[in-house]
Amino acid sequence: MRISILTMCPELLGGFLDSHVVKRAEKLGAGRVRILDIREYAGGSYRHIDDSPFGGGRGLVLRCGPVLDALKAAEEEGRAEGLGPAFRIALVPAGLPYDQKRARSLAGMEHLILICGRYEGMDARIYDHVDLRLSVGDYVLTGGEIPAMAVADSVLRLLKGNLKEGSAEEESFENGLLEYPQYTQPADYQGQRVPEVLLSGNHEKIRAWRLRESLRETLEYRPDLLRERDLTPEESKILAELSAGRKGEQ
Amino acid sequence: MRISILTMCPELLGGFLDSHVVKRAEKLGAGRVRILDIREYAGGSYRHIDDSPFGGGRGLVLRCGPVLDALKAAEEEGRAEGLGPAFRIALVPAGLPYDQKRARSLAGMEHLILICGRYEGMDARIYDHVDLRLSVGDYVLTGGEIPAMAVADSVLRLLKGNLKEGSAEEESFENGLLEYPQYTQPADYQGQRVPEVLLSGNHEKIRAWRLRESLRETLEYRPDLLRERDLTPEESKILAELSAGRKGEQ
Repeated sequence: MRISILTMCPELLGGFLDSHVVKRAEKLGAGRVRILDIREYAGGSYRHIDDSPFGGGRGLVLRCGPVLDALKAAEEEGRAEGLGPAFRIALVPAGLPYDQKRARSLAGMEHLILICGRYEGMDARIYDHVDLRLSVGDYVLTGGEIPAMAVADSVLRLLKGNLKEGSAEEESFENGLLEYPQYTQPADYQGQRVPEVLLSGNHEKIRAWRLRESLRETLEYRPDLLRERDLTPEESKILAELSAGRKGEQ
Repeated sequence: MRISILTMCPELLGGFLDSHVVKRAEKLGAGRVRILDIREYAGGSYRHIDDSPFGGGRGLVLRCGPVLDALKAAEEEGRAEGLGPAFRIALVPAGLPYDQKRARSLAGMEHLILICGRYEGMDARIYDHVDLRLSVGDYVLTGGEIPAMAVADSVLRLLKGNLKEGSAEEESFENGLLEYPQYTQPADYQGQRVPEVLLSGNHEKIRAWRLRESLRETLEYRPDLLRERDLTPEESKILAELSAGRKGEQ
């Protein structure tokens, strides 16, 4: 797959292009990232990339001309590479929440175009030319570059060959629970010891402990994930015990 | 304020350090970002930065020694600069959801330390040495570097002098609604016209239109934000009209 990122700040993405996940996807022939600088499309009668908002207000709004010209250029590049129609996404605060399920669906695309919005404002006519508006979280950033890296990283790592087989399935959000705590060498770090069960070699006990800790983490940090979940009988029993324990502490 | 970022991949943050928001915060004396490379603290009897998980399983787990040594070093650097105690955050999938309210509270800190977790796994004993575990969204990334940039960017831009006065307040999430659509020159872009009301110069009409569109965006993309909101009488009336309109379309 190809991921085209349209940005006003290509320099912000420099380190990401050299990152392990991007290099590895490219080396495996699984995916590649291309950057298009929106400023290069700001020619013509309007030289500036942004301007004051109609109707008044503070800040500057990214103009539609340069963005849509860059979008056309990215689509043409994809076609020239023999790719199918591009799936176009604007990364803006006013979008659908991005999550792992969406990452999985995007990982199946041939050509993904990510438009980095400016959070101060972006001409809304651009939205008529995209397939989806996505938001990576409820916080205000300077622009869509960090969100574009988040989407590209989470998608590229799902591509065939880029992950050790099976490892993604065990990770947070993949099974609807937060991950259990992990430990590695040394077993005793300045008096902080690894839980005994993990050193026992008893696979069933380890599995049960990990499920319990996974539920404990989710109950503490993301109880919302439990409300949406179809619990197994084992999970229900553990959660009842954990809840009783919490009440006992109060 | 100082933001210390502890990472195994400092090169990933190179572009961010040169970004406008970081440069501006530094120039104004409002905030500065410092990177500590965890690999530089991986000496001693265990030379590797990661190792297999106790209890079995795929993937590698980031060891606690190098991370905690880097954490101590960052705390010492802060003290040497005359800063108060550091507030220590681990950026991991199993954390509290990061949002704009949290950004505001972090913007008041003297020294913020951000530990970039490895999403594959990080020795859980590290968590006993942090004040908070934060997650930037429900998607799986390679590591905590992109989340650290998201936190640093959203915090730095809130610092005094770094934003045009008043502009943050008008932005998405700040008032609990998504932002209304913005438009700028030209008024007619290849047949796509800016809504007439924005060219009217009638401030009250513009205000009412923007509130309506802001509610429309929120209703479409983030209805969850409306459920938590204390609606004004004007907002309730608009929402009732918008809901009736949506039903009419079906």
